[in-house]
Amino acid sequence: MKKYNVGILGATGAVGQEMIKLLEERNFPIENIRFFASSRSAGKEINFKGVKYFIEEAKKGIFKNIDILLGASPNDLAKELIPSAIEEGCVVVDNSSAFRLDDNVPLVVPEVNPEAAKNHKGLIANPNCATIIGLVAINKLNSFNKIKKIIVSTYQAVSGAGAGGITELDEQVAAISQNKEVNPKVFSHQIAYNLIPQIGGFNDMGYSSEEMKFQNEGKKILGNEDLKVNCTCVRVPVYRSHSESITIEFENEMDIKKAEEILKNSPGVKFIPTEKDGNLPMPLDTSDQDLVFVGRLRYDMSREDKKGLSLWCCGDQIRKGAATNAIQIAELLIK
Amino acid sequence: MKKYNVGILGATGAVGQEMIKLLEERNFPIENIRFFASSRSAGKEINFKGVKYFIEEAKKGIFKNIDILLGASPNDLAKELIPSAIEEGCVVVDNSSAFRLDDNVPLVVPEVNPEAAKNHKGLIANPNCATIIGLVAINKLNSFNKIKKIIVSTYQAVSGAGAGGITELDEQVAAISQNKEVNPKVFSHQIAYNLIPQIGGFNDMGYSSEEMKFQNEGKKILGNEDLKVNCTCVRVPVYRSHSESITIEFENEMDIKKAEEILKNSPGVKFIPTEKDGNLPMPLDTSDQDLVFVGRLRYDMSREDKKGLSLWCCGDQIRKGAATNAIQIAELLIK
Repeated sequence: MKKYNVGILGATGAVGQEMIKLLEERNFPIENIRFFASSRSAGKEINFKGVKYFIEEAKKGIFKNIDILLGASPNDLAKELIPSAIEEGCVVVDNSSAFRLDDNVPLVVPEVNPEAAKNHKGLIANPNCATIIGLVAINKLNSFNKIKKIIVSTYQAVSGAGAGGITELDEQVAAISQNKEVNPKVFSHQIAYNLIPQIGGFNDMGYSSEEMKFQNEGKKILGNEDLKVNCTCVRVPVYRSHSESITIEFENEMDIKKAEEILKNSPGVKFIPTEKDGNLPMPLDTSDQDLVFVGRLRYDMSREDKKGLSLWCCGDQIRKGAATNAIQIAELLIK
Repeated sequence: MKKYNVGILGATGAVGQEMIKLLEERNFPIENIRFFASSRSAGKEINFKGVKYFIEEAKKGIFKNIDILLGASPNDLAKELIPSAIEEGCVVVDNSSAFRLDDNVPLVVPEVNPEAAKNHKGLIANPNCATIIGLVAINKLNSFNKIKKIIVSTYQAVSGAGAGGITELDEQVAAISQNKEVNPKVFSHQIAYNLIPQIGGFNDMGYSSEEMKFQNEGKKILGNEDLKVNCTCVRVPVYRSHSESITIEFENEMDIKKAEEILKNSPGVKFIPTEKDGNLPMPLDTSDQDLVFVGRLRYDMSREDKKGLSLWCCGDQIRKGAATNAIQIAELLIK
């Protein structure tokens, strides 16, 4: 079996750390592995399959001889270094949002549009986490009966803002239990026991950047230029796993039994039927695994016809929403 | 000024306790006040305006000479005792869901349909908390441009399940910080750092009882038999104040500047414009006060026309969603 030289750009962040764990877990065929981060982290050690590695400073010219570079860096670093890494010969799978809407860059969810990966020019982009989770949930329904419109409200975990989000929630919970003052740093407001209905800056229409991603990336991934998405993104005091309340409008009537059957057979999906005292898709149960749990399936009762369904889904946004999806793309590349 | 003999049925619960606080705060004209609860609480003391009162056991025949009885009891106790209290001469304002959809019982939000209170036959029902908060937010928009459809996802605080919900969240957070096991009692699953997408039992369509309330009570309060509501109710680890992500379809085009003007002048509403680094309606800021904060106002971008708006609102569900609304109804009665 062929083995590859793999690099991780942004190895110290929440997504980079998860990528390292997943490369071990999925036994990706690695010849050599290298880890890159900002100068602040350079020289620190990383353990991979029982071997110690030193983190190298990420800079132009350093990526030669790497076959696959997994990008888990912030946007600014991605913009600066990835064009150079491609010139140096890497194929890059990038999790930043810097190149996602570039016409020359495939945007891939392996369960949805794996064929798009074939046409890459050295770079494949990994979509936004909430978009991946929502699309894995609804993709096969869309293949059967084209989706015209989605109205989605999200419930997004603090780790979506990186490891600092988790620390901030913990510190705030501790401060409150000791009657101490809460000083938000990672988030704009207190997140412990609170909700923040804003993720990213607002555009002129009043939508946040996170809300626009589902619309723009959703169109590109589903190859459906007419897809309409209205998204409301909200940060919630949950450590890990994003949840989404989704109402779908289909082109044609959609039998709910058929929808259930499709969801039961959708790749990457675990379907949970609605039962008295039954299970429910919840962030706690979906953390630290790769499936998107889908449940609460029902007709949209605000419609007279059967062209609408509502559902609820949860998925681990660090794994399937980022690291797992990126490594699944790398696995497509070496197939 | 005329003064009234007031009773509180279910005086020991979260809503009953808040009613006591509000009767003091709003200086309701009280001649005598009496407190009723189950036999378990009978004999315990309650302090009202510096005077100690004993809780009486709630039972038939005990409500004579009470002018206004505020009901904050569970449904079963309400069903058993309220018909008798009416016969004994009380006018009852009841917060349980037992009589809300009864054609002979007005269901009142004072900012929305105060005139309905006039036609009572001894009983006025207080609507569901999430329904009150949502309707206060959208009512004046509906008066200007009839609302055809609402799609709403809720983010509901643990205190919606009573004082026990708060204790449960606290105990679970403490247990987790000490690596101890979490044993849910009030909620069906762990609520700390989690979300539970079910409030109440499911019907055959797959909607929970809480989700049906917005549809059924909304129609009755707005007097709009054609109103369509699709609701998804979710419990979140927030102490107090329910939040709602609402997408509205109007009968006619709705100019967003006009909508903003209407919301700024809506009774019971505090409108928060969308601004870079600006304020946002959040449960933390809306707790322990009576206004419904409305913000994130924008066109529904999944529509080609301007018949749709999305917004986000938060309100204290123990106060405006229950106790305040009930006492406002009592204030209407004595006007």
